[in-house]
Amino acid sequence: MSNSKSKSSSLHEKAGISPPEITNVSAINEIQQKRKLQPSSKELVDGILSSSRTALSRAITLIESTNPEHLIKANEVIKDCLPHANNSVRIGITGVPGVGKSTFIEAFGKYLTQSGKKVAVLAVDPSSSLSHGSILGDKTRMEELVKDENAFIRPSASGATLGGVARKTREAIILCEAAGFDTIIIETVGVGQSETAVHSMVDFFLLLKISGAGDELQGIKRGIMEMADAIVINKADGDNVKKANLAKVEFNRALHLFPIKKSAWQPKVTTCSAVTKDGIPEVWETISSYFEQTKETGYFQENRKDQNHFWMMETINEQLKSKFYSQPNILSELEKNKKAVQNNEISPFAAAQNLLELYFK
Amino acid sequence: MSNSKSKSSSLHEKAGISPPEITNVSAINEIQQKRKLQPSSKELVDGILSSSRTALSRAITLIESTNPEHLIKANEVIKDCLPHANNSVRIGITGVPGVGKSTFIEAFGKYLTQSGKKVAVLAVDPSSSLSHGSILGDKTRMEELVKDENAFIRPSASGATLGGVARKTREAIILCEAAGFDTIIIETVGVGQSETAVHSMVDFFLLLKISGAGDELQGIKRGIMEMADAIVINKADGDNVKKANLAKVEFNRALHLFPIKKSAWQPKVTTCSAVTKDGIPEVWETISSYFEQTKETGYFQENRKDQNHFWMMETINEQLKSKFYSQPNILSELEKNKKAVQNNEISPFAAAQNLLELYFK
Repeated sequence: MSNSKSKSSSLHEKAGISPPEITNVSAINEIQQKRKLQPSSKELVDGILSSSRTALSRAITLIESTNPEHLIKANEVIKDCLPHANNSVRIGITGVPGVGKSTFIEAFGKYLTQSGKKVAVLAVDPSSSLSHGSILGDKTRMEELVKDENAFIRPSASGATLGGVARKTREAIILCEAAGFDTIIIETVGVGQSETAVHSMVDFFLLLKISGAGDELQGIKRGIMEMADAIVINKADGDNVKKANLAKVEFNRALHLFPIKKSAWQPKVTTCSAVTKDGIPEVWETISSYFEQTKETGYFQENRKDQNHFWMMETINEQLKSKFYSQPNILSELEKNKKAVQNNEISPFAAAQNLLELYFK
Repeated sequence: MSNSKSKSSSLHEKAGISPPEITNVSAINEIQQKRKLQPSSKELVDGILSSSRTALSRAITLIESTNPEHLIKANEVIKDCLPHANNSVRIGITGVPGVGKSTFIEAFGKYLTQSGKKVAVLAVDPSSSLSHGSILGDKTRMEELVKDENAFIRPSASGATLGGVARKTREAIILCEAAGFDTIIIETVGVGQSETAVHSMVDFFLLLKISGAGDELQGIKRGIMEMADAIVINKADGDNVKKANLAKVEFNRALHLFPIKKSAWQPKVTTCSAVTKDGIPEVWETISSYFEQTKETGYFQENRKDQNHFWMMETINEQLKSKFYSQPNILSELEKNKKAVQNNEISPFAAAQNLLELYFK
């Protein structure tokens, strides 16, 4: 190959080392052709069931697409994956920014893969479409895990509504399970209602915290502590060990004040360090004993059924609302009635009646 | 008046004392006529605004009626009362059966009326239609307050749905306020979502508890503690005083672990005895300082606006759902899809899609 860039211009470039000759042009064409072709839903399912990460990634992309044709195909893939799903444990992990979620998941995930587990890490972060991924957007924060053959990391689906993001994540769980991942970790941050959504799609809910002057508590949203099956106090290393142990005592005391959970599980508080790896095995021990207990009582299975039912109803309710609020005549009347309600000219119920009559007439 | 019942039968009755002669037949006719006549909405409003308890009671009965004509009239009454409402403080009181809610409200209510307040006590108890009034069904439990000129006690509206009971109570609040009641107490028990509903219609939410071996905590529902603006430990008398004070310390510690409230109010824990009346004035002191603080920051007013908006949206959403789920074809398909979802034959989202297509086609 001759140096074609050499011209009689002032931007003269010295001839460098020539790239190697292409030895197999037809192979390149074939690859390019394949890339353009969308795999069929059967090809995707076969790929997923034989643990192909490429097939899994592509199927998740399909789920996340807004193209109606993709939606049909995605539904086919999910339907065929469903009989092979559900053989995992699903763990939700939440915590305010700064508690070290990524580092913790990296250390915890590595511990799990070294114990022979296959770990998929997904995320629910409805803000990611605005912030371009505040969590998991940057896989480099999980340097080790991302290179791990037995781990699969996927950033949060983007979307304007939590409902949409939640749907996509729930379906991604099914695909990951069908691909043979036996431990699914769902990461989330305290944005809006995302924790409640994640709590409704996992078997175990872990709240990650750090010890401190007490003000670290202010960041968590109301109700999160009551949802937690375990509180893990991270960064319990060096000078922090003592403070972390104090926080552990404090949280344990507080948790005992809460009413007993439907699962009959008494939430545990432990400390750990994602840096020294101290306490990481204990986190898994806690989770394991939870699974042992709830599978024996049947709560585990019952809860999954309830969650499925919940998401069906939730989707219906969301769609009914979205249809109502997308009517132009409703929107203008809504504003009028809202003002009248706020100025105490009309009761909230009479205002609602006005709008419903308009909708159903 | 001769004894017309004397007949030649074995059921012979001896002539007794004759009833007094009717001296004013036209007066009786007039009363009977009036009783049959329903007062007009204007008459009701006039009555309410001049603090007539009869008018207030009748208007609330109208609100609670299922007759569509009554609904129209009720809406007129509410509309005309609205400009005269909203000048009260609304206090929600909850606690499991056995904490002594009725006795507490009796003592607290008497304290308020003796301080010159006009107190209305309403209740939200969706179970009352089944249990025939588990709370406030029996006014005799508030012996003193029921005779008090400055108090008005009304048992819970009955109804199959919490939404319906909540609507009726919200509207009864408006009427009570228009009738000049400046302190509205809404009582509820921990049934289903009734506490959340009451929390969304009051300015201040009080959780009543008793001290004990720790197991008294098990009765309360998850999330209630975080909703409370005050926890009052009742029955702090005799041998219980020490235990009540210990419980106070424990709850105070726990409450400090919760994230800061939107109102910026730090919930208080106090003890009281509805029997000795110890601590009753302190409960009102706590509530007063809450109102002082939140009215100054503007949270009080903002929260009421938000609540009005919430109830408008809530009513719309409830009605949209109720319309959907009352379609016979939806109901049969719902059962089929529910089963398929539970058996993992179809994803919850695909099942929802099936039903929505059926509904909107």
